[in-house]
Amino acid sequence: MTDKTPTSRRNFLKGSIAAGGALAATPALAAGDPAITEVQPWANQLGEGVDVAPYGMPSKYEAHVRRRDVPWLTADPVSSVNFTPLHELDGVITPNGLCFERHHGGTADIDPAKYRLMINGLVEKELVFTLQDLKRFPRQNRAYFLECAANSGMEWRGAQLNGCQFTHGMIHNVIYTGVSLRTILEQAGVKTNGKWVMPEGADASAMTRSIPIEKALDDCLVAFAMNGEALRPEQGYPVRLVVPGWEGNMWVKWLRRIEVGDMPWHHREETSKYTDLMANGKARRFTWEMDAKSVITNPSPQAPITHGKGHTIITGVAWSGRGTIKEVHVTTDGGRNWHQARIDGPSWDKSMHRFYYEFDWDGSPLLLQSRAVDSTGYVQPTKNELRAVRGENSIYHNNGIQTWHINEKGEAENVEIS
Amino acid sequence: MTDKTPTSRRNFLKGSIAAGGALAATPALAAGDPAITEVQPWANQLGEGVDVAPYGMPSKYEAHVRRRDVPWLTADPVSSVNFTPLHELDGVITPNGLCFERHHGGTADIDPAKYRLMINGLVEKELVFTLQDLKRFPRQNRAYFLECAANSGMEWRGAQLNGCQFTHGMIHNVIYTGVSLRTILEQAGVKTNGKWVMPEGADASAMTRSIPIEKALDDCLVAFAMNGEALRPEQGYPVRLVVPGWEGNMWVKWLRRIEVGDMPWHHREETSKYTDLMANGKARRFTWEMDAKSVITNPSPQAPITHGKGHTIITGVAWSGRGTIKEVHVTTDGGRNWHQARIDGPSWDKSMHRFYYEFDWDGSPLLLQSRAVDSTGYVQPTKNELRAVRGENSIYHNNGIQTWHINEKGEAENVEIS
Repeated sequence: MTDKTPTSRRNFLKGSIAAGGALAATPALAAGDPAITEVQPWANQLGEGVDVAPYGMPSKYEAHVRRRDVPWLTADPVSSVNFTPLHELDGVITPNGLCFERHHGGTADIDPAKYRLMINGLVEKELVFTLQDLKRFPRQNRAYFLECAANSGMEWRGAQLNGCQFTHGMIHNVIYTGVSLRTILEQAGVKTNGKWVMPEGADASAMTRSIPIEKALDDCLVAFAMNGEALRPEQGYPVRLVVPGWEGNMWVKWLRRIEVGDMPWHHREETSKYTDLMANGKARRFTWEMDAKSVITNPSPQAPITHGKGHTIITGVAWSGRGTIKEVHVTTDGGRNWHQARIDGPSWDKSMHRFYYEFDWDGSPLLLQSRAVDSTGYVQPTKNELRAVRGENSIYHNNGIQTWHINEKGEAENVEIS
Repeated sequence: MTDKTPTSRRNFLKGSIAAGGALAATPALAAGDPAITEVQPWANQLGEGVDVAPYGMPSKYEAHVRRRDVPWLTADPVSSVNFTPLHELDGVITPNGLCFERHHGGTADIDPAKYRLMINGLVEKELVFTLQDLKRFPRQNRAYFLECAANSGMEWRGAQLNGCQFTHGMIHNVIYTGVSLRTILEQAGVKTNGKWVMPEGADASAMTRSIPIEKALDDCLVAFAMNGEALRPEQGYPVRLVVPGWEGNMWVKWLRRIEVGDMPWHHREETSKYTDLMANGKARRFTWEMDAKSVITNPSPQAPITHGKGHTIITGVAWSGRGTIKEVHVTTDGGRNWHQARIDGPSWDKSMHRFYYEFDWDGSPLLLQSRAVDSTGYVQPTKNELRAVRGENSIYHNNGIQTWHINEKGEAENVEIS
């Protein structure tokens, strides 16, 4: 690795800012540009007033910023998935309307007045809470990424989907408001032989997963708000479980029941699914943590470089289920030289980080990659390094390094370097 | 002040958690509650699939969570204002769709392809940028509150509007992505006699304000994204100015031009408006900073206590244009006894903070107030303390302590304590 020193990077940035001044001399901005010389329609007439949208929506010019599905990926549209448009976002927060959806029985339409959460099993006292009951316990506000274990799953056997929305878009990052699961369990009193909990969803799929009691008593939240407002229906309204750093399937939505038991349940979603088939035909039983991962969101296949050569901003996101992101490295030549990216914005535990790498593009083809290092020192591996350990059968937990090929026109393509 | 010590507060919280267990024994949750014993419709049928909303919206049960205006407050609906529903929110982030709007000529409908930003006046080189040009400079991600100088303005002469949405809802708090204004000005090269800048809006009102060069070169942003996505139309799409900690009127939306000058311009919005008329008939010329302020959002007139006596959570928000919030104090008896509230969630400079105060309500009437102390040591004053200094004529910059009277039924009313 040939990281530039912080000093040389600062000089580089300074130089690129100076180059930026030349941006103002592009042909579109020559004297006579009607966008400057003519009064524009929006300056010539009153705009729409405040009563247009009691709940506001994005500009009509941003209609392309949307969740998208991949029609051939799942057979039944009501038990399907769509993807977050990572290439259209900046910063670290995913807007609620753009958080990817994954349903196993469609979005449950729950009347909050009829919502109940039951705690049962190996507890001193079985309990049932209304939504208002839950809101009377001390609340916490915490930002966490939620990544589906199958994110990048289609890429395990080779570059396939042409856009980071599809290769990496089964992730979102929001600030939750909720009550500690520990507080709720303490109300019921976990018996000494209570070693596991099983959250259950109230939707038609009745999603269930097994969670060890240590995690349940650590940092899990029973959450009722995201990014300041009530959970969205497709994210579990009115209540979901938050299991920081662990695979999204465990973050049970439309949470209706938590059972305490003395062993894992081995239900459908932790046996036939959400296990990793190894080369020898055996499956890894539980792989809860999401390892450190990153992806360059711009440029990428859905977001080519359109300004031609010159000062160029590479940006992307990185996250780890084991802590914060300490460093992100970026290469433009397929890994021969690595440069330290600048992380800007909040650096929270088990939350998405934003990175930038600025450079002067000479217009020649690029092989772009990013590589995350988390606070435990773990370094994001290549896909081939993962395959060497886990074989070719995996779908889940692909945190390998992503490569984008950029051609002379600035167009990007999903490729692999062998 | 009779703050409890941190130790006694922890004991208090522990006690209240134990009391919370009794919540599960409310009559609605007795054996036979059909919400528990009967299969609910949402568990019995597939829900809606992922193609329903490419850009998601809140639950139909949350339709009451919306911006609201006060019809009699402004004559013309296209040059009007609406208010953030603070009583419906939690945490520190305001969702983009709920950020209050204030227009002086309606929402400009700007085609981003035709967007231009001009820098002119006392600069070495006048420049024009496209939106893409701006995005090629190094980006920053920063959370800031934006408060209209007129927030709480109707309350200056006495308790008037019955709801914190109306008394305090001209504020929002989002994470911006943008470019440092300093970077943009350095491209043009500010001449030595350039001491002020004048941002100008592209909307029909052509909003202009004067900003001293020291602030312009400090922490201002030329922002193009909020909470991860493009700015909303009513918040200045595609580009607005961010002037951290200073009155919202200066955060020019639909930013089209920044002129550098050697003295302030004294335009309409800093002379006839956004100045403070004192008791002697003279006006304070510039009052840019927003002083420390807080408000209890729950309970409040739009959000009464509905669960009866017992464990009760008081929550609210606090902010300061001069730094972070160090402490928030809450009183339930009109200021005879003050208790230290718990601040939970991010504590960023010039950004909204969330506080909670938990107590056991005995069902008797309350006089609720909150009081913010910022990182400079400044203590939020009472309204009467403000009036003693500024007289009765003010509208802007009312950061006085708000009082809610809670009756035996849990209903809240806007009152003042003389």
